[in-house]
Amino acid sequence: MKRYKRESQSSYALGTTVCFELLAQRKQQVRAVYVHPNINESDGYFKLLDLCEKYKIEVRKESKIFNVLSPKENCFVIGEFEKYPSELSPDRPHIALVSPSGSGNVGTIMRTMLGFGFKDLALVLPCADPFSPETVRSSMGAVFSLNVKEYRSFEEYVEEFKTHAPYPFMLTASKPVGEVNFLFPYTLIFGNEARGLEEKFAALGQSVIIPCSRDVDSLNLSVAAAIAMYEAKKRT
Amino acid sequence: MKRYKRESQSSYALGTTVCFELLAQRKQQVRAVYVHPNINESDGYFKLLDLCEKYKIEVRKESKIFNVLSPKENCFVIGEFEKYPSELSPDRPHIALVSPSGSGNVGTIMRTMLGFGFKDLALVLPCADPFSPETVRSSMGAVFSLNVKEYRSFEEYVEEFKTHAPYPFMLTASKPVGEVNFLFPYTLIFGNEARGLEEKFAALGQSVIIPCSRDVDSLNLSVAAAIAMYEAKKRT
Repeated sequence: MKRYKRESQSSYALGTTVCFELLAQRKQQVRAVYVHPNINESDGYFKLLDLCEKYKIEVRKESKIFNVLSPKENCFVIGEFEKYPSELSPDRPHIALVSPSGSGNVGTIMRTMLGFGFKDLALVLPCADPFSPETVRSSMGAVFSLNVKEYRSFEEYVEEFKTHAPYPFMLTASKPVGEVNFLFPYTLIFGNEARGLEEKFAALGQSVIIPCSRDVDSLNLSVAAAIAMYEAKKRT
Repeated sequence: MKRYKRESQSSYALGTTVCFELLAQRKQQVRAVYVHPNINESDGYFKLLDLCEKYKIEVRKESKIFNVLSPKENCFVIGEFEKYPSELSPDRPHIALVSPSGSGNVGTIMRTMLGFGFKDLALVLPCADPFSPETVRSSMGAVFSLNVKEYRSFEEYVEEFKTHAPYPFMLTASKPVGEVNFLFPYTLIFGNEARGLEEKFAALGQSVIIPCSRDVDSLNLSVAAAIAMYEAKKRT
């Protein structure tokens, strides 16, 4: 049992809710399900055992993996899964995050995407690991319902999706998100938590701002992305 | 140097940005500013020293407090401040959080409040500590620009602000946030991350829903609050 690393071939879904999402969406990827010896043998527990039996997934009752992966938390179920590549849909709108550093933000954005019906996420490297146990947990398992693909540069992404209309979200933009007519299919683009998007992104297409007070430098990344998705969904 | 506890009379602003917010908004509350011996003596550092000299605030160069409060992070400035009570404005709209458990969520909501011009936050106990170093840091220092008051129950809050129109945000509501005409002054009310608001809140006033897919149980609390604030601000 080793600590998770980005280059690991498998990762972990921590907690019952996240593990059920893994089993529901990506059962072929599951290598094993671990249950803590102190687990409360409730209805959820038996439902989990039934599912694993149905899918022929090995269930291991042991505490060691919990000490390594989740020493402080009250987590009683861990799903180990093989990481998998995805391709983004050419027809649907995309979310693109350019070098986000926080796994909590990326996970929260995944959950919000699923909430607003976005299924395709482009990540520009370097960025937080979309499959780290922290990201997976922050997403509440939404990651398993999405297509997530990493790109070495934004140019590489554009090369693949030339017909997507790009909407970079920038503090220097003048068009408020509530007044944009999003052309279909579109890409909502967000920069790094601390730096935002570089000025060159303004030349890509209609840059957009979320109107907010000068009392804050900017909104939190996952908050900004959520408002953008909410508005785009309302208007398309 | 002791670890922070909820009953402590003073707390800490971790990091340069947060510490500058503390000095800008609540300089009377500052007890001392600590700088790490390894701090990069840049323009920001000298600006900090100038401010502390101007406000007659003691600056201590030592590493011990950093080891206790921020052992893993690259944090080089800590502001120690005396905690202070606040009263909410009777005329302005409020945000009310009923028993939020995550300090990251409460901090992010504080930052979003400041971004959308909300200045008054009611917290119903039990709830995350609004003055813990984690909350303060997640707020990026926004907490120092807000009035935050804790209540033992929601009834206690209502007793004090009888004329505020309550808008409980609930998954069981039928009115979409985009169709609400918010009466002034209003209170946007949100429940705990896992449980939401109890059904009895629906009887208080117009309950509101943020339309979203059944693929997720709910949106993240700070995301839901952000969308609500964004819409309320747009419509009032």
